[in-house]
Amino acid sequence: MKHPPALARLIDALHALPGIGPKTAQRLAFKLLQDERGAAQELSQAMEHALASVGRCRRCRMLAEGGLCPLCDSTSRDDSQLCVVESPADVMAVENSGAYRGRYFVLMGHLSPLDGIGPVELGLHELDLLLAEDRVREVILATNSTVEGEATAHVVSEMARAHGLTATRIAQGVPFGGELEYVDGGTLAHALAGRQSVR
Amino acid sequence: MKHPPALARLIDALHALPGIGPKTAQRLAFKLLQDERGAAQELSQAMEHALASVGRCRRCRMLAEGGLCPLCDSTSRDDSQLCVVESPADVMAVENSGAYRGRYFVLMGHLSPLDGIGPVELGLHELDLLLAEDRVREVILATNSTVEGEATAHVVSEMARAHGLTATRIAQGVPFGGELEYVDGGTLAHALAGRQSVR
Repeated sequence: MKHPPALARLIDALHALPGIGPKTAQRLAFKLLQDERGAAQELSQAMEHALASVGRCRRCRMLAEGGLCPLCDSTSRDDSQLCVVESPADVMAVENSGAYRGRYFVLMGHLSPLDGIGPVELGLHELDLLLAEDRVREVILATNSTVEGEATAHVVSEMARAHGLTATRIAQGVPFGGELEYVDGGTLAHALAGRQSVR
Repeated sequence: MKHPPALARLIDALHALPGIGPKTAQRLAFKLLQDERGAAQELSQAMEHALASVGRCRRCRMLAEGGLCPLCDSTSRDDSQLCVVESPADVMAVENSGAYRGRYFVLMGHLSPLDGIGPVELGLHELDLLLAEDRVREVILATNSTVEGEATAHVVSEMARAHGLTATRIAQGVPFGGELEYVDGGTLAHALAGRQSVR
């Protein structure tokens, strides 16, 4: 059976969201039009509003309303540390760890020449200007532990060194609470290579 | 860390969707504002459009654009059978089985006095008018196999009988391809009670 066009369009639009399959999209569309019309109205308006008013922080490229994000605007953060991450979600993850009080720089992706994502798309020029300000002492590379993430971290570390700054990479190893038996070989190899003397 | 207000509103609106938790809502919002702005725009507009133009079929209460849904509008369906279901998704499920060529009536819920859902909300008056038209011969009760679904089926079956029509309930039993070992006791009890002689 074919859906009415407006319903089919809504299902397609929901299906285009990351992680929403065709069945979930249909279920959501039915639910929204059946007895969640208020929620649907609010979502549509919130989306319009966010698209119009949420842009990128002009300093760290994090999602922000107005010029600066709350993290760059804050006066209580440590200016000497700059944590470089791939995405806004990574900023939230590091923030939620509660273990970091410095600033961030969000690349909004990783180097991927085949997809046309190079230094310009990742804002490496803006990062260069930021490092030249002479406030940062240490650049903490917190890109993903993937091939692309490592390659990106390498390029950023070269930039940091060019400015005479320390570049550090977050540790790879066994997850907190993880049992060796269930840890994959690659992780265990990194954990062994990165072993530290017991104090 | 607190999100900018417009971003927080979008996350809340996504979180209000059925089956979307707070973490998924945040991930979706970041993704939409980061590199899926086209998809976000289209979703917002598709939602507005669907809310404005998708209503209920004036005959069967299925979601429809304009007065009649494609199923009621079709001339190739069997008018003598009427399948009563709880939701539009149930219509799709029965249609996808390919085993039914009759008409539908969508209750848009089930009897639930505590939630204020009674005969009026389920459109039982409209159903009564439809049964009085003297085209339907058999009312097939395809509400869910839950306590509320069974109660609703019972009420509808009384209505069918009042019009002198046959009322049938879809069979309960072991799922197609199901192994007895993994079937729950309630289902097995129904399967035994509903056993049929082998031809």
